[in-house]
Amino acid sequence: MSKFPRNFFSGQLDRRHFFLGGLAGFGVSAIAAAAYRNFWAQPLKANAAQIPPVELDRQSIEQNGFDPMQVLRDFNYGEVIEEEGRKIRVYHLEANSTEINLNAAIKYISWNINRRVPGPTLRATEGDRLRIIFHNADGHSHTLHFHGTHPEEMDGVKPVRHGKTMVYEFDAMPYGVHLYHCHVAPVTRHIGKGLFGMFIIDPPEGRPPADEMVLVMGGYDINNDEKNELYAFNGIPNVFRDRPIPIVQNQLVRLYILNMIEFDVAVTFHIHANFFQLYRTGRTLTPNEESDVVTMGTAERHILEFAYPFTGKYMFHPHQDYIAEHGCMGFFDVLSPSEA
Amino acid sequence: MSKFPRNFFSGQLDRRHFFLGGLAGFGVSAIAAAAYRNFWAQPLKANAAQIPPVELDRQSIEQNGFDPMQVLRDFNYGEVIEEEGRKIRVYHLEANSTEINLNAAIKYISWNINRRVPGPTLRATEGDRLRIIFHNADGHSHTLHFHGTHPEEMDGVKPVRHGKTMVYEFDAMPYGVHLYHCHVAPVTRHIGKGLFGMFIIDPPEGRPPADEMVLVMGGYDINNDEKNELYAFNGIPNVFRDRPIPIVQNQLVRLYILNMIEFDVAVTFHIHANFFQLYRTGRTLTPNEESDVVTMGTAERHILEFAYPFTGKYMFHPHQDYIAEHGCMGFFDVLSPSEA
Amino acid sequence: MSKFPRNFFSGQLDRRHFFLGGLAGFGVSAIAAAAYRNFWAQPLKANAAQIPPVELDRQSIEQNGFDPMQVLRDFNYGEVIEEEGRKIRVYHLEANSTEINLNAAIKYISWNINRRVPGPTLRATEGDRLRIIFHNADGHSHTLHFHGTHPEEMDGVKPVRHGKTMVYEFDAMPYGVHLYHCHVAPVTRHIGKGLFGMFIIDPPEGRPPADEMVLVMGGYDINNDEKNELYAFNGIPNVFRDRPIPIVQNQLVRLYILNMIEFDVAVTFHIHANFFQLYRTGRTLTPNEESDVVTMGTAERHILEFAYPFTGKYMFHPHQDYIAEHGCMGFFDVLSPSEA
Repeated sequence: MSKFPRNFFSGQLDRRHFFLGGLAGFGVSAIAAAAYRNFWAQPLKANAAQIPPVELDRQSIEQNGFDPMQVLRDFNYGEVIEEEGRKIRVYHLEANSTEINLNAAIKYISWNINRRVPGPTLRATEGDRLRIIFHNADGHSHTLHFHGTHPEEMDGVKPVRHGKTMVYEFDAMPYGVHLYHCHVAPVTRHIGKGLFGMFIIDPPEGRPPADEMVLVMGGYDINNDEKNELYAFNGIPNVFRDRPIPIVQNQLVRLYILNMIEFDVAVTFHIHANFFQLYRTGRTLTPNEESDVVTMGTAERHILEFAYPFTGKYMFHPHQDYIAEHGCMGFFDVLSPSEA
Repeated sequence: MSKFPRNFFSGQLDRRHFFLGGLAGFGVSAIAAAAYRNFWAQPLKANAAQIPPVELDRQSIEQNGFDPMQVLRDFNYGEVIEEEGRKIRVYHLEANSTEINLNAAIKYISWNINRRVPGPTLRATEGDRLRIIFHNADGHSHTLHFHGTHPEEMDGVKPVRHGKTMVYEFDAMPYGVHLYHCHVAPVTRHIGKGLFGMFIIDPPEGRPPADEMVLVMGGYDINNDEKNELYAFNGIPNVFRDRPIPIVQNQLVRLYILNMIEFDVAVTFHIHANFFQLYRTGRTLTPNEESDVVTMGTAERHILEFAYPFTGKYMFHPHQDYIAEHGCMGFFDVLSPSEA
Repeated sequence: MSKFPRNFFSGQLDRRHFFLGGLAGFGVSAIAAAAYRNFWAQPLKANAAQIPPVELDRQSIEQNGFDPMQVLRDFNYGEVIEEEGRKIRVYHLEANSTEINLNAAIKYISWNINRRVPGPTLRATEGDRLRIIFHNADGHSHTLHFHGTHPEEMDGVKPVRHGKTMVYEFDAMPYGVHLYHCHVAPVTRHIGKGLFGMFIIDPPEGRPPADEMVLVMGGYDINNDEKNELYAFNGIPNVFRDRPIPIVQNQLVRLYILNMIEFDVAVTFHIHANFFQLYRTGRTLTPNEESDVVTMGTAERHILEFAYPFTGKYMFHPHQDYIAEHGCMGFFDVLSPSEA
């Protein structure tokens, strides 16, 4: 546990890396309350990497209940308790419907976990006992189906009705990059509206120090025509296009990438001006291959590792450029160590 | 040959693993005739795995001419003859049009091999001489194009007209999971209507004992709009959703999976609550990687190996959930060894 | 440099492998001028492979400004100069709009590099200094975005206006199969109309002798409905269906394959009657796997190596047969060494 001393539920948030710029008096207003309500973020200091500070977007937090930039480096290790001599990680997840602003013109009712799209990135170490307390506060029935290994009764395919709570409990196996999502039919709709999140199981020996981050690709079928009109990394279209992700030159980035896009059967993920090491499904400690483009069907997810040798701004996006140009586009802003 | 003592054409069928439940007097009626006509199945006892008995679906056999559950573990090793001192495996394949019931409301004219979709799973060992006697009993021209290595004249791109017979003969090379399909234009239509099957070439040294099974994913473009409206494993939508595949807890399953879906450029295949070892195109004896999701373009096929540690029912499906929810969905029913 | 003694700009073209059949007096007419203007081809004798002569298509050169057969084995190593003691490879690329004939009925205005679709296959060795002098002679703004490693200012995302010249300069890193394309929005349109090409960086130690060739898959959205109506290898639909690519029996072919199809999120590439060794993104010296089908999302590219054991004609195409049957289809014509 010593590796991950801070805990969502303990309130010991480390906000060093976040600040809300240009907002006098922020902290006591309704806006601030909304911000704090969503300020589950545990910025990852893990692994001793130098993580540049990022400015939170007050408007996004106010309008959407979260900021995709906060989602980026937020890992939820649960609350560690002991029962009968065994440590258990307890996670509290709640399904809700919340309105999000996909752009200046389009408000959209998302179905989500903990008022964010994607839901919290749950994280544990292989072999940990996990207890996910899932409360359905939404008007529709939902479930949490986890990828990974578990018995049938923990598979999350039986609907949990409005107001009900279901406890999923199983051992974290095997290490890798996994996901969870609602499995109520039509799944395309429950996933499309935002009921999904990443689920990382670390190998017992851990991975080398890096600036770790999460990008989840999603698609929005605004008009219910079984096609997507908008796409996003971490829930809101174009956020990382308008607010590049700061990273440090020559420092290892470990990107956990997940494709949750329905209707388009696959996408690629591409980074500009660089190559990544690919760890398929995160199921290896040594890379499977190296490229700057990887094809990912729905529910595929991988670890990509890379470091940028030059400072500057570099795009990342699916190379299905229609998808990139409809919201699934971002930049890394590579800073020299002294700038960061 | 001793590994595969039973032979389709020899009539030495092993029906121990099949029974037709609740049908008094079955065996002499027209229904039974249809059943027997299609009862080419050689249930695989191979490799000493414990294979739970399955109940055949009399209605499916009557209506469709086959039962996808029978297709599942049916391997056709041909008839072994000797010519000029060399052993030859002889397979008899016939193209026909037959009506199948895609669901309670939709009857569909399939084009197929041996009155089933997919056609027989042909199986041989690397280096075997194969002779495929292909008779086109259908009103349209068809061919059999085999994946694998062979000379031009055996490539199966020249149409075989109604009533004609073409003999394809070549050596089984290289070992792996292959396929055959009609190559008459438009191929989308000839494949879409069901003229395809799996073609397995075993490595000379064989593979370890396992419960071996075949799943072929197909799509049906009912209204000829060059999109699929229904999808299926082994020919009939939703069969394995309604009749889970029994397998034995902790016993190795070797799944030969093939994507024959046209119009959707790729799908994933996903198993719930577990991970599989992936042998790409079956071209290796050690796994390439491990995941619970693999992306497969049209004509891709792989070997997946896994064992379920817990009893219970677990879904498998493409994670393009639209495809899963339109017929390409099934369950494994994991039984304890004593139950099976 | 000694490996690649011939140079586009030096005029030392080796035309031994090309001849223009049945055209008396060719060489001084307007047609000939057009042909010569486009006769940048440096047929690769590299690596001592036996390359069968091919007949150029006078009509294609006249109508389209290039012949896809010429594109096939044409590698542009640039002009080597020395500056301050360092060798630099200089490439001259020019954006234009030119009309091409997609078939007998459809003329199409392509946007392209050096009056061909795809643009020149740029080639260098890892570590070489590259200088790409890009002149935009087209009416629209364009850029050249290179895959590979380079600083931000060389990333080619800033539009270069009509009549302007931009010099991209960077070191060729890392070895592999890369690409370049216009990155002006909508990228789907700039790529769809033909502004792309392959970019090969050889490993310092080179690769074994082979008949090396380039196939780039592209899609044409004729009616701007964000779907493709036609597809092509090397720019013009069905060329290699009508004019098979001659190769030599039992001789290694090294195929550099790139998927530049927009709107269809992925395709497979399949060769008939054979298997290939796959070098993903060309980033390895030993193959990653072996198959006869590989799924490739947009911007994916690989090296495929194979040799045909039998003479004859063998198809290659995406196994999304709709795409194959709308122009992305070809044949290898495998000749015995004495025929070739």
